[in-house]
Amino acid sequence: MRTDREPRRPVLTVDLGGTKIASAVIDAGSEVLARDHRLTRVDEGVEAVIGRIFEVVESLLKESNPGPSQPGSISIAAAGAIDSVKGVVTLSPNLPGWCNIPLRDQVAERFGMDTFLVNDASAAALAEHRLGAGRGTDNLIYITVSTGIGGGIVIGGQLYLGSSGAAGEIGHMVIDSGGPECYCGLSGCLEVLASGTAIAREAKKRLRDGQNSALIGLVAGNIDAITAREVSQAAQDGDRLAAEVVAQAAKYLGIGMAGVVNIFNPDIIVFGGGVSKMGDFLLDPVRRLVREKAFSISAQAVRIVTAELGDDVGLLGAAIFAREQKMGRQPDEN
Amino acid sequence: MRTDREPRRPVLTVDLGGTKIASAVIDAGSEVLARDHRLTRVDEGVEAVIGRIFEVVESLLKESNPGPSQPGSISIAAAGAIDSVKGVVTLSPNLPGWCNIPLRDQVAERFGMDTFLVNDASAAALAEHRLGAGRGTDNLIYITVSTGIGGGIVIGGQLYLGSSGAAGEIGHMVIDSGGPECYCGLSGCLEVLASGTAIAREAKKRLRDGQNSALIGLVAGNIDAITAREVSQAAQDGDRLAAEVVAQAAKYLGIGMAGVVNIFNPDIIVFGGGVSKMGDFLLDPVRRLVREKAFSISAQAVRIVTAELGDDVGLLGAAIFAREQKMGRQPDEN
Repeated sequence: MRTDREPRRPVLTVDLGGTKIASAVIDAGSEVLARDHRLTRVDEGVEAVIGRIFEVVESLLKESNPGPSQPGSISIAAAGAIDSVKGVVTLSPNLPGWCNIPLRDQVAERFGMDTFLVNDASAAALAEHRLGAGRGTDNLIYITVSTGIGGGIVIGGQLYLGSSGAAGEIGHMVIDSGGPECYCGLSGCLEVLASGTAIAREAKKRLRDGQNSALIGLVAGNIDAITAREVSQAAQDGDRLAAEVVAQAAKYLGIGMAGVVNIFNPDIIVFGGGVSKMGDFLLDPVRRLVREKAFSISAQAVRIVTAELGDDVGLLGAAIFAREQKMGRQPDEN
Repeated sequence: MRTDREPRRPVLTVDLGGTKIASAVIDAGSEVLARDHRLTRVDEGVEAVIGRIFEVVESLLKESNPGPSQPGSISIAAAGAIDSVKGVVTLSPNLPGWCNIPLRDQVAERFGMDTFLVNDASAAALAEHRLGAGRGTDNLIYITVSTGIGGGIVIGGQLYLGSSGAAGEIGHMVIDSGGPECYCGLSGCLEVLASGTAIAREAKKRLRDGQNSALIGLVAGNIDAITAREVSQAAQDGDRLAAEVVAQAAKYLGIGMAGVVNIFNPDIIVFGGGVSKMGDFLLDPVRRLVREKAFSISAQAVRIVTAELGDDVGLLGAAIFAREQKMGRQPDEN
C-alpha cells in the first residue's frame, strides 16, 4: 500500500449522505481545491453506492495535479453508527441495507491510499472546534438536528470517539420513556422526539386531526409533502400550529441539553443541521430550559450557539480527522 | 502557604457525606496509614460541620509522625455539584444549606497546606479506574446508586471534570419527562426514578395503596421505616412487591445506561453505592436492556460490573486526585 509520509498533503474527502455523495479535495489550510458529487441512490444497493464513491474519488484524483498537491489520503464521513477503529459502517438509518460494511478497507484497497472513516457528526464537531463556532474551547458538544439527530464530542480539544469509535450518539438517549419507538431500539429518545422527521410527523398528525394551519397552503393541500422546512417557515411566520410543533421539539431539545450540560459541563454546545437554521427561534427556548433546569454551575459555563460552517462541515471535519490521525501516527513528521 | 514539593508524601483525605465525615491518611501506595471520623450533623449548620472537618484533620495531623510520612496535602471528596476548579461546594442535596461554600480555601487557609476538592463519585471513578474494577480500561463510567445517583467519567485514562469541574452528573439526565420532580430542577431524571430514595418511595406508595408484602414484617409494620435496604432484601428473598419495585428501578437504570453507552461507547460501566450491593440481581436486567436497546457496536464493547473497592473508595479516589493534580503541576518531580 502506498503510504503518505507527508501529513500536509491535501486530503480527498467524501461525505456519504442518504441523498448525496459530496466530495472535495481539501488542503492543509482547509481550502477546497476541487469538488464533485453524485446522487447516492441508496435504493440501488450497497455495491452500486460504493461504485459511485469510487467514481467520485477517481474523478477528483484525475483532476489533481501530480506532485505535492496530489491528495495523500482519503477520508470519509458517513451518517450512522460507525466503527471508526475498524472502518466499518455498522448501521445507518440514512443508508438502508448498510449493515457491517467495511467501507474504509474497500476504498483503501481500491486506491492504495491511507483511508479513514468517521461519523459525520463527529467530523462536524471537529470542524466546528478547529475552524468554526468552537474555536478556542476545551470541551464542545456538537448536535446536528436534521432528518435525525447526531452528535459529536470534543474533550480537552480532542475528538472523543469512545472505545470502538462509535461515541457521540446523543440523539439516542431516552427523554420520554413512554414515547414513540425509534429505529435504534429505544423508545422516546431525543431523535424520535425532536428531529426534523419528528417535527414533520407531529405537524402532519395535528393537521390530520383537523387542526387548521397555514401549512396546508404551503404544500397546496398535500399534507404528505410537509417537511420540517415548511413547519419551520410557517412557525417563524406566526402560524400557531407550526409554532406549537417547533416549541415542543425545542422543549425536548432543552430537556436533553440540560442532561448533556449536567453530564459534560461543556464550554459550548454547537447546533448544526437543517433544522438548526431556525437559529434563535429554536435555540432561545433551549437556552432558557438549560438555564432553568441544569445545575447552575454548569448552566452558567455553557454557551449554546448555531454552527458557523456551512454544508462543507462534514468534508472539512473529515480532512482534519485524517490529518490528525496521521500526525498521531507520525509525531515527528508533523 | 507551605507547599509540598514531594507528590509521593501521604495525602490526608476527607469524605464528606450527609451522615459521616470519614477521614484517612493514605500513602502513595494507596495504603491507609491512619483513619478517623465524625458524625456530620448537618442540621447544626455549615460552620459547625466545617469545624468538625477541621477537628478530624487536626487529629490525624497530630497522629502522623513528622518527616516524610507527614501528609503533604489535604483532599476532600464531597457529594453534590462541586466546582473543583474553584474548590466550591455549589449545591449538595446531602448537605442542606451548603450553597456556594468555598470549602477548599477555608481548609487550605486553616492548615496552610495544598488542598483539593472533588465530587465523591468522580473520586470513586478515579479509584475504581486505578485500583478497582476498571484497571487497564481507557473509558470508564462510574455510577453510584445510593440515596441519590452520582456519576464519574474517565476518558482516555484521565478523570474528566468538564469546564468548571462539575461534570459527571449522570443521575440528572431525564429518562421520563413526565416523571416526578427532582430537587435538581428536572422532572423524571434518573435519580428521581431509580435511586435508593426512589426505590423506598415507590415501595411505601404501593404498601399504602394496600398491596401486601413481606416488607411490612421486616419493619414491624412501620412503613415509614422502609429504606432501599429492606426492599432489596425482600426482593432477593422473593417478595413480589419488592421485586417489582427493584425491577422498575433496574428498567430505568437500563434505559439510562443504553443512552450512556450510545453517548460514551465506554469500555466499562462500574456500579457502586449501597443499592448496587444487590449485584447481578440489579445489574442483569440493566445488562439485558443495554444489549437489546443500545447500538450493537457500543453494546458489544461495554462490560457492566459492580465496584471492587469498598467504603473507602471516595477516600482512595481523593488521594489519587490530589497526587495526580500535584504531578500535573510538577511534571519533572514525578
